[in-house]
Amino acid sequence: MLMTDIIAKKRDGTQLSDDEIQFVVKGATKKEIPDYQLSAFLMAVYLRGMTEKETVWLTLAMAQSGEVLDLSPLGDKTVDKHSTGGVGDKTTLICAPIAAALGCVVAKMSGRGLGHTGGTVDKLESISGYQTKLSKEEFFALAKENGICLMGHSGNFAPADSILYALRDVTATVESIPLIASSIMSKKIAAGAKNIVLDVKYGSGAFMKTPELAEKLAIEMVKIGKNAGRNTTAVITDMDIPLGKSIGNALEVKEACEILKGKGDKRLRELCLCLAANMHSLSFGTEYEASYNMATKVLENGKAFDVFLRAVKSHGGDTSLITGQKDFIKSEASLKIYSKESGYISEINSEIIGKAAVLSGAGRETLEEKIDFSAGIVLEKNYGEYVNKGDLLATLYSKKERAEKGAKLLIKAFTFSQEKPVEKPLIYKIIS
Amino acid sequence: MLMTDIIAKKRDGTQLSDDEIQFVVKGATKKEIPDYQLSAFLMAVYLRGMTEKETVWLTLAMAQSGEVLDLSPLGDKTVDKHSTGGVGDKTTLICAPIAAALGCVVAKMSGRGLGHTGGTVDKLESISGYQTKLSKEEFFALAKENGICLMGHSGNFAPADSILYALRDVTATVESIPLIASSIMSKKIAAGAKNIVLDVKYGSGAFMKTPELAEKLAIEMVKIGKNAGRNTTAVITDMDIPLGKSIGNALEVKEACEILKGKGDKRLRELCLCLAANMHSLSFGTEYEASYNMATKVLENGKAFDVFLRAVKSHGGDTSLITGQKDFIKSEASLKIYSKESGYISEINSEIIGKAAVLSGAGRETLEEKIDFSAGIVLEKNYGEYVNKGDLLATLYSKKERAEKGAKLLIKAFTFSQEKPVEKPLIYKIIS
Repeated sequence: MLMTDIIAKKRDGTQLSDDEIQFVVKGATKKEIPDYQLSAFLMAVYLRGMTEKETVWLTLAMAQSGEVLDLSPLGDKTVDKHSTGGVGDKTTLICAPIAAALGCVVAKMSGRGLGHTGGTVDKLESISGYQTKLSKEEFFALAKENGICLMGHSGNFAPADSILYALRDVTATVESIPLIASSIMSKKIAAGAKNIVLDVKYGSGAFMKTPELAEKLAIEMVKIGKNAGRNTTAVITDMDIPLGKSIGNALEVKEACEILKGKGDKRLRELCLCLAANMHSLSFGTEYEASYNMATKVLENGKAFDVFLRAVKSHGGDTSLITGQKDFIKSEASLKIYSKESGYISEINSEIIGKAAVLSGAGRETLEEKIDFSAGIVLEKNYGEYVNKGDLLATLYSKKERAEKGAKLLIKAFTFSQEKPVEKPLIYKIIS
Repeated sequence: MLMTDIIAKKRDGTQLSDDEIQFVVKGATKKEIPDYQLSAFLMAVYLRGMTEKETVWLTLAMAQSGEVLDLSPLGDKTVDKHSTGGVGDKTTLICAPIAAALGCVVAKMSGRGLGHTGGTVDKLESISGYQTKLSKEEFFALAKENGICLMGHSGNFAPADSILYALRDVTATVESIPLIASSIMSKKIAAGAKNIVLDVKYGSGAFMKTPELAEKLAIEMVKIGKNAGRNTTAVITDMDIPLGKSIGNALEVKEACEILKGKGDKRLRELCLCLAANMHSLSFGTEYEASYNMATKVLENGKAFDVFLRAVKSHGGDTSLITGQKDFIKSEASLKIYSKESGYISEINSEIIGKAAVLSGAGRETLEEKIDFSAGIVLEKNYGEYVNKGDLLATLYSKKERAEKGAKLLIKAFTFSQEKPVEKPLIYKIIS
């Protein structure tokens, strides 16, 4: 098999065979195919697309390029949840305990944040003492004991994806639906859960800018999951405005605890219930409505909160931060942002909020940077709300020297209008 | 300027600016842009195409990436002739002396053959003593003295093209009209002639398989030439059947001498007159018909032959081979191919003939291989001619050990039919 022939085939829009795709992925993993051939191939894929079969083959080949976790010792109710990345997205911290409280097994490895989107591992590490690095044995033991284990990535999952992604990043071939879908799903399949719920986001803070594009990606990923023998559902949700009130690691854990205590932002609570209900419904084969009602119940009766508390304790985290007996460490400075005009809030731009949070110290631009767990933003007003000039819009928490720069960008996230803006539906569609 | 932005722009089908194209070409030449970005760019160009402006900018940037010959000391009648490569194509050896006899200055550097297409330098070197390596001073001096100097490449012409071509060769991005056109024209422009005649070939032995594709390429190249301030004409000609009777270096020189002596194959003579007439007409601004008549005249009165004889002498070549007083060195073996059936010859496949010639030792697969100047093929019958079973079709000249393999392939080039096949017009179109 010759790589030039495979490139030419894809270039001409002919469907590749499973063998040919495996040849490419194995060659990439073993560094036997030079980068210049891979990048020509990736550009041909970008411009010619891939059939459903090709995308599935690519995903499976990438999943099998490294370690594939076998979660079957934990039963068949193992469930993974993945978000395509958002601003203020702390849903894993909420829906995972809810699902576990309903009998699912959420044995999940998460990533760190990069750029304007946060990562679950960073959020968890803002709970002092919480260990995100565990051995495989500890991972399985905790998942068995608590029905939940949230830790960082351990092991060499889908290395081919990392290699191809690094090339895509420098060759303008990132924004391709089959390449994005196979990249995400290869890692999910290698992560081993029988059931997979995807939160595919659209809007200013998301990778996909429109619901239509997000739906395309969702359909592609659900197809791949099913073809790979995993029950898969995708929820397509709005990320035009940030999720919840808080952006920043400790601030988000605090907000998650509020939701788990039955309080907090309605929109955030709604999405978490929807995700948890899908996780349960997929795992147990129940109707979504029934699962949704059960999820609401364990959220309201405190069972989900107890699961989270137990999980934090098992990971060595300080539970008094979760119960609220003790407060999270305070940031060095806080700066209040007041409205300069009167009117309805017609936009809270997620991407700008995310970037302001990075400026505050809550995020990082490269994986080497350290995060300030106490930094971030708390929104004091909602999208669509009427504000008067001088009203408090948001508070920025940061180190002193970062406050002004962050605040300057933060104010730009708000747009006002004299007419009440249309409501933004949170959940666009559920694809299963 | 960022290479990823340039790739993305081309990927999305937006026209690049001159500056952006210069950035790519300079970066490629200086090895500052990594191969994987260049190959993604080339694939985007392959699939998205290039506008006329982009193609001109690319060509000029590649021409200027190395040395650009200034032929103006030789006047404004300097003329270059380029063939996109064929089988049995010895036209340069004939049309260059004709054009020089008419007052043009043919100061021309040629290449070596590779694969099934031959190269002028190899043919010239089959004339014992002929020096194809000259200094720039000798090149100019001979061109001035004789109106003709045919030598090998000397100097670093269009190095960007070599770099990009090497990448295209391994990334399935060769067959792109703007990339082929800019590759050829960048070298022609760097070669410095004021007037350029292109012989764009189509058919089984050519790069372009149909006259329509050849025409597209021709139009593109003529546009580029004019935009670069060179008078440019393209002749689109058939390469479905080999050109003339002989394929192989010494055999082709011998055939060229026959034509220059007013004899030989009609089709070959016709093409050479057409090319020479275009060379003259472009250089002097005369009507094509007038130039054609003048070309016929210098061919018939021996002036063109005298020019060639003088040129060979000036390069140190043995002129007795040209006059015919002495014969070229004989091949070790010769094998006659007889027809196994009766009928009209309905195909003499150029590509197969070319490959059989390589097997005989007349060509090379890599630039390192040595050529057997005495090897090759002489066709004894024409396309469309009626043959009886047992008639002589062709003779293969080679070393003993190569004869059988070559002959076995050679016979496959011939196809027969019971009906007289339609004539293949030699000249499809002239684009100027």
